[in-house]
Amino acid sequence: MHILLTNDDGILAPGLRAMRRELARLGEVSVVAPDTVQSAAAHAITINAPLVAKRVHVHKEFHGWSVAGRPADCVKLAVDQLLERPPDLVVSGINDGANVSINVLYSGTVAAAAEGALLGFPSIAVSLEWGAELDFDWAARIAGGLIDRAVAAPLSPGQLLNVNIPDLSSGPPLGVRVAPQTVQRMDDYYERRDAPDGSDQYYLQGWFKEPDGDVAGDLKALLGHYVVVTPLHFDLTDHAQLRDLAGWEWGPIPS
Amino acid sequence: MHILLTNDDGILAPGLRAMRRELARLGEVSVVAPDTVQSAAAHAITINAPLVAKRVHVHKEFHGWSVAGRPADCVKLAVDQLLERPPDLVVSGINDGANVSINVLYSGTVAAAAEGALLGFPSIAVSLEWGAELDFDWAARIAGGLIDRAVAAPLSPGQLLNVNIPDLSSGPPLGVRVAPQTVQRMDDYYERRDAPDGSDQYYLQGWFKEPDGDVAGDLKALLGHYVVVTPLHFDLTDHAQLRDLAGWEWGPIPS
Repeated sequence: MHILLTNDDGILAPGLRAMRRELARLGEVSVVAPDTVQSAAAHAITINAPLVAKRVHVHKEFHGWSVAGRPADCVKLAVDQLLERPPDLVVSGINDGANVSINVLYSGTVAAAAEGALLGFPSIAVSLEWGAELDFDWAARIAGGLIDRAVAAPLSPGQLLNVNIPDLSSGPPLGVRVAPQTVQRMDDYYERRDAPDGSDQYYLQGWFKEPDGDVAGDLKALLGHYVVVTPLHFDLTDHAQLRDLAGWEWGPIPS
Repeated sequence: MHILLTNDDGILAPGLRAMRRELARLGEVSVVAPDTVQSAAAHAITINAPLVAKRVHVHKEFHGWSVAGRPADCVKLAVDQLLERPPDLVVSGINDGANVSINVLYSGTVAAAAEGALLGFPSIAVSLEWGAELDFDWAARIAGGLIDRAVAAPLSPGQLLNVNIPDLSSGPPLGVRVAPQTVQRMDDYYERRDAPDGSDQYYLQGWFKEPDGDVAGDLKALLGHYVVVTPLHFDLTDHAQLRDLAGWEWGPIPS
């Protein structure tokens, strides 16, 4: 099996290093990852400038491609140019921080896996919730077990799983839950500072809200200390609204 | 009515200028937009650095906030800090180029409107297909008519519409179509160049595929010369897969 591994924390990130070691158990791993931290890069891609890719040796442990671009760029470029043969699986992570609820929209980790799925490969994003410490080796073993399971299923071409692992510093996860993405805004806000140059600077602060009421989504499962698996897709259409809008009269088009 | 106007082509873009003039007919318009071109920025936000916002006078025509950040940053910061009162409507555009099919995932224009919707405001993204020339004034009149209609409906809090206007240089649109997002990959690839510094540089090329078969989505409607309206939402869950995955046995969690 040939696995393309990427992330959004950059090719030097400990989460990627741990995931690569675990994946090496399953097959040949090609690493193509951003040269810098790309947290919250979402599904951005580079369209008006060239991408530069360099072959690098990381931690004296593995070779890979370091790309001066976004996580989704890495997957597109890997598949089109850098890899000698197509991957059988795309893995993104392990991200330093959970990617559940509305954070899925902002996540470069998820976007990289989404790009893999869009290109037709089974793809898995893996993220680890923050805690007192981040045990990426343990998280990689947990993710490895889920990936074994998914490969055996097998995942279909273009199928996308978003895996989140709870804070391991507070003990072993209680199990695996399959849950939908929670759709709820973050509880965030900006703090304003006067900079020495006289400009107004705003720092984003805040965090997830606790899930409202009895919402049984990814966020609640993660906070309940479960490993959460959420299948995602790319059709953003609101089909309920679509039926409603289809009945509107739009009037003439102005000339 | 108070309208927040933003875009991803930057505060100086002609599409934003034309949209602002049209929206001024409907109410008070507050402009908060990126200071530079942010095409394909998707739903990226700035989390590890401060946002800097400056009050600017643009084209000697309007005042606005120029934000050194992403389109979604502009909406978050506007609502939390810059605007004196919440908007009744968020408009993003007019984008220089269509945002249909899978491009919806990459689009900063759509992401800015999505952020508005996520914050609870009715939100509309407007994009104009490329053609021999881009008549943003005409596009703004067309968008204005649709926005009138949507405001009268009224749109619900958090409802998000993605509006695409076909190439106007080939004549008036044939009408308005409500259509789902086409889910189909781009027909894109990279061209490799040797740079003078010895690095490998890759340039993304390519465009939409023609829709496969009889797909009745946003791309086909746009290419058929219709104005296309697509309601979007933020739940990326693949509900069909969710039911399937719920039956999987996941095995024990490694310690």
